This record gives sequence, structure tokens and C-alpha cells, in this order.
Amino acid sequence: MAEMDESTRAELAELRQSIDNIDAALVHLLAERFKATQRVGRLKAERGLPPSDPDRERVQIARLRALALDAQLDPAFAEKWFNFVVAEVIHHHEQIASTGSVSTQSAAQ
Amino acid sequence: MAEMDESTRAELAELRQSIDNIDAALVHLLAERFKATQRVGRLKAERGLPPSDPDRERVQIARLRALALDAQLDPAFAEKWFNFVVAEVIHHHEQIASTGSVSTQSAAQ
Repeated sequence: MAEMDESTRAELAELRQSIDNIDAALVHLLAERFKATQRVGRLKAERGLPPSDPDRERVQIARLRALALDAQLDPAFAEKWFNFVVAEVIHHHEQIASTGSVSTQSAAQ
Repeated sequence: MAEMDESTRAELAELRQSIDNIDAALVHLLAERFKATQRVGRLKAERGLPPSDPDRERVQIARLRALALDAQLDPAFAEKWFNFVVAEVIHHHEQIASTGSVSTQSAAQ
């Protein structure tokens, strides 16, 4: 690894502190998102509705791609990211439908 | 699909509006996160530093798992999510090192 001078080290540390702050916000927002989707999962399980909703997902993806473009985030990445999160949501919905709850501490992977 | 009564439909719509609000916030924060990591990527490329930094990533993962536990988010999911985002960051750093910039609009997948 190349040696870092003092100004590079200071600039990197400052950027990393911003990244850490953003990451803390992202984790807390993701936690809120899963609270909301778990409420959706319980509602769907109680009413016998299917765990996934492809029509809703298509609308969400189109909206997120537009928001991403506006924020100068790669829309293809926004879509991949959304699919990654939704896969976890569907997994939760299936758990709720079969067991009544989501085991948030058990995923030892 | 089972028929939805009016109160289920209203409750679902309300939860989905919260999810959509959270998603808009997440997309904008992700855009900011990539702005910061692209600055890191340019700095690393200028100074000849390697694109990835396993020591820094280990610290980030431990911190995010602790934040996730505190926010009642599955820490294993938080870690998977972080690795998913970091894979994109490393890809950007490599692009910056070889071409000088990140093509945010080109990923037609």
C-alpha cells in the first residue's frame, strides 16, 4: 500500500466520517422500512393476501428509478438495490404467514 | 387473490405511503453516500491507494451490526446489505482508477 501524506489522511478521514453518518441514517431508515413492511405482512397474512405484489413492485421500481436519476444515482443500481431489499421483505412476509412473526435475530449467515 | 375490504385497503395504502416516503429518503441518502465514496475513489486513485480496504470494512460492519441491533434490524441483513453496497463502491473505485470517472448512466442491465 502506498504511503499516505497528512493531508490525504485528513481528507480521507473527513469523507469517511460523512459516510459513517450516512450509514447510520440508512440503517435506521431500513429498520423503519422493515417495521412498516412487517405490518403489511401481518395484514396480508390475516386477510389471506399473497406475500408479493408484482404490480405494486413495478410502480415502485419506476418511481425509484426516476428519483435516482433526479438525485444522480445510477437508476440501474437503485433498481438492483430495491430488488435486494424486497427479496428480504418477501422472505419476512412468508415467515409471518407461516409462523406469525419474523425472527430478526436468527439469521446466522 | 382474496378480496380486500375497505378498511384493509385503507390501512395498506397508509403503510405503503410511509414505505414510499422512506424509500425516497433512502434513495437520496444512497446518492449522497456514493458522492462521498466517489470522492474517496478519486483520492485513492490520485495517491495510488488500493480500491478496497478490508480493515476499514471490518470496522464498518461491526459498527453497522451494533447500530442494527439497537434499531431492531436483523444485523445479518445489515451486513449483507452493506456488502451489497460496498461491492458497487469497489466497482466505482476501479472505474475511477482506470478511466478517471464513474459512468452513472451506462449500466443497462
